[in-house]
Amino acid sequence: MSKNITSQKDNYASWYTDVIIKSGLADYGPVKGTMVIKPYGYELWENIKLALDNMLKDSGHVNAYFPLFIPKSFLASEAKHVEGFAKECAVVTHHRLRTTNDGQSVEVDPESKLEEEVIVRPTSETVIWSMYKKWIQSYRDLPLLINQWANVVRWEMRTRLFLRTTEFLWQEGHTAHETEEEAQEETLKILNIYQTLAEQYLAMPVLTGIKTDSEKFAGAEKTYSIEAMMGDKRALQAGTSHNLGQNFAKAFDVTFQDRENKETFVYATSWGVSTRLVGGVVMAHGDDRGLVLPPKIAPVQVIIIPIAKTDDDKKLIMHHVNNIVTQCVEKEIRIKVDDSNNSPGFKFNEWELKGVPIRLEIGIRDISNKEAVLARRDTGDKQSVKLDNILKSIQEQLDEIQINILRKATDFRDKNTFKVKSFEEFKDLINTTSGFIRCGWDGTAETENAIKNETKATIRCIPFNSNPKGIKCIYSGKEALHEAIFAKAY
Amino acid sequence: MSKNITSQKDNYASWYTDVIIKSGLADYGPVKGTMVIKPYGYELWENIKLALDNMLKDSGHVNAYFPLFIPKSFLASEAKHVEGFAKECAVVTHHRLRTTNDGQSVEVDPESKLEEEVIVRPTSETVIWSMYKKWIQSYRDLPLLINQWANVVRWEMRTRLFLRTTEFLWQEGHTAHETEEEAQEETLKILNIYQTLAEQYLAMPVLTGIKTDSEKFAGAEKTYSIEAMMGDKRALQAGTSHNLGQNFAKAFDVTFQDRENKETFVYATSWGVSTRLVGGVVMAHGDDRGLVLPPKIAPVQVIIIPIAKTDDDKKLIMHHVNNIVTQCVEKEIRIKVDDSNNSPGFKFNEWELKGVPIRLEIGIRDISNKEAVLARRDTGDKQSVKLDNILKSIQEQLDEIQINILRKATDFRDKNTFKVKSFEEFKDLINTTSGFIRCGWDGTAETENAIKNETKATIRCIPFNSNPKGIKCIYSGKEALHEAIFAKAY
Repeated sequence: MSKNITSQKDNYASWYTDVIIKSGLADYGPVKGTMVIKPYGYELWENIKLALDNMLKDSGHVNAYFPLFIPKSFLASEAKHVEGFAKECAVVTHHRLRTTNDGQSVEVDPESKLEEEVIVRPTSETVIWSMYKKWIQSYRDLPLLINQWANVVRWEMRTRLFLRTTEFLWQEGHTAHETEEEAQEETLKILNIYQTLAEQYLAMPVLTGIKTDSEKFAGAEKTYSIEAMMGDKRALQAGTSHNLGQNFAKAFDVTFQDRENKETFVYATSWGVSTRLVGGVVMAHGDDRGLVLPPKIAPVQVIIIPIAKTDDDKKLIMHHVNNIVTQCVEKEIRIKVDDSNNSPGFKFNEWELKGVPIRLEIGIRDISNKEAVLARRDTGDKQSVKLDNILKSIQEQLDEIQINILRKATDFRDKNTFKVKSFEEFKDLINTTSGFIRCGWDGTAETENAIKNETKATIRCIPFNSNPKGIKCIYSGKEALHEAIFAKAY
Repeated sequence: MSKNITSQKDNYASWYTDVIIKSGLADYGPVKGTMVIKPYGYELWENIKLALDNMLKDSGHVNAYFPLFIPKSFLASEAKHVEGFAKECAVVTHHRLRTTNDGQSVEVDPESKLEEEVIVRPTSETVIWSMYKKWIQSYRDLPLLINQWANVVRWEMRTRLFLRTTEFLWQEGHTAHETEEEAQEETLKILNIYQTLAEQYLAMPVLTGIKTDSEKFAGAEKTYSIEAMMGDKRALQAGTSHNLGQNFAKAFDVTFQDRENKETFVYATSWGVSTRLVGGVVMAHGDDRGLVLPPKIAPVQVIIIPIAKTDDDKKLIMHHVNNIVTQCVEKEIRIKVDDSNNSPGFKFNEWELKGVPIRLEIGIRDISNKEAVLARRDTGDKQSVKLDNILKSIQEQLDEIQINILRKATDFRDKNTFKVKSFEEFKDLINTTSGFIRCGWDGTAETENAIKNETKATIRCIPFNSNPKGIKCIYSGKEALHEAIFAKAY
């Protein structure tokens, strides 16, 4: 246990917060529910962002930027969307402060009341579709494949670092298409990109599937999600991709002249992942010593700890250390040297807490053996590696760690995914070992709600390989319409 | 004149707006004063951002993210800062909407009034220094070199695309130091980076110098700026770097234990450039045909226009075109092919409007000569280039264009910078040819104001090489304290 981190077993929620604060990922902001993403956390986010941005650009998407402020009236345009989103959001009503009479403070200037209040975007469908109305005339303007990286605000009552904060950072894609088929294809293409991001970069295995009506996005025809299992066996919805049909096009009157010269409403998709992914990485891989970061997104991939007792030793050791750093930097390996005055033990704890995949220890005896000690964060294994060959050893180990973390998380998820035969067994599982439960569901909202009320488990998704043939609904005993994945979720 | 763009001579402001809208850089947002940065404009911004981000990281700065919302009370903490900033900003007073009684619309829920209003950040000094108070204890925590890329809001009455919008994107650096000297060094280091960005990437020559007291940032000890000349000879403040002394540290009580074990207030700097730079690029280089983009930041560096009359011709031409594209992509040259059905003339106008540095025209006769026609946007020159050698020709021309655009803008600026002998001459110049005027100033706010009132010209900066020896103030006739640069400014 490093630095007074609560153990996972004692209190998973406290462990989560401790790790985030003490590893330097984030801190609480001054306004309730807000968060400061500290440099270490932001660099992690930048690495995630870059990986996704490259995949989106490679698949023909372009970035743009739409305004933070949305006229209040826009939120009334799409009825279902309002129901889902218009509720808890930040409302700007005035545009000026003035100094108080005593000159000591500031107050809102009542003269500056806005004619129409503006909303700080909780998501940008409305403002974007108000622009698409101007930009789309003909099928030649389609498809429109726009993404934006932005901050959004949802006035949450109960917040949690990275998982649910009043303001968060995300990307939101908003595409426009000629046909329903094309929109559906886009929706699934993005879901696939999200799965690649989660599994290949974040080393976080995800289930993919469709959301039930009660869990889908306000204004969508169909919502798909990627769902990951956290260390406490709860589910994290880590990304969603929506087929919006013609709902927003109708709300904002966006039509185009199609190939047959007919005016047709545009088909739409939207999709997003957010800084919540950082919380996912923390909970998918972390342990009682702190973070365990996948090499592909770790801000620091290798930390070198020189261990010297005398100045002469240090000089000799640093000569070799600098040589290693030069080799790694050339190959774009993110490497750092901790030559501070802290003790080796302190440094080991510190960098384990920060989840750095590889630690290299280099002392004077190692040098005389032409070796260094390479310690892996994921397994705790230590091995001697030859200095002659060290770049290759580092590269191999980084690859191996990336694969191992994913494998470990996949094994954990699979080990904690259950098929059950009765609702008794279902309840028992959810309340004791917990995990994902795959079972039959009759497709009704009543059943879904009843299960939620009795167990707090929700349907995370109906997986693509759902096969309800011959299966009964776990709750009603009727023919199952779907196999569904149930779990308690963040 | 393409696409009904107002000529610069007829109306410079209309030319500016026409070019931005018609080239697809940006559009107006639905809330007054807001702007949508369209994909072409956003990619330009991304290229500027990347160049600067690399320079900041190379000089030891790290990125982080601080909250959008600032408690109202924070703005009262630094008295001068309030005076300068607390005035026109977006105030959030409520956190919920509700459906109206008729079910047709939404309204602000009066029950959701916030106890303390929050402000949408106009700049982040206050929120950041409230965090630095937690993070800084000892000299070992210094320097703290943090930058953030973010959106900020200032409720402007008169707005203009990119130059002055209610919301804009920027980076804001906020650093903390042990000593006054270190803070001053940082302030100037950043100014130097901004100059490099402007001149080497945006091809926009800038004057550097210090601002007068009346023009400096609210809360700063010293403000330095980079000042560029636009095509209408007005000045654009394109970036500022502030030495904040201990003002914010005192306002937020941020002290550290120094090397002598004394509690000392921290020294600070802050600095920023914004999407305003995009407006600068438009006005520094654009002409009556549209944008002229410097190759280093152009979203598209080379546009290929295949000119084919028959399908067979097209097939042969596209074979060569694809070959060129492959070669360029390998060298990370941003190249595009316009094989739409529009006429060559239409395409020429379109891509000139978009400011693409190089256009390649390839017709069937060119192919048989093993050539292509290379047209330069900056000079309008056309030349035949050998297909065998085309990658090298493109690379050379891109370099040449980058240099030429900077040279042209520098010549223009120098040609329009004047030394004057009398205030009559000053007024005459400002009102007729306009431009930058370099002359003596007695250093008083009275003189500065009087000149501003009579001519609308302000002191852009006191340049570093100011040499007031033996010079009189242009207005008062007293001994000049400084040589200053006067101009009308955006």
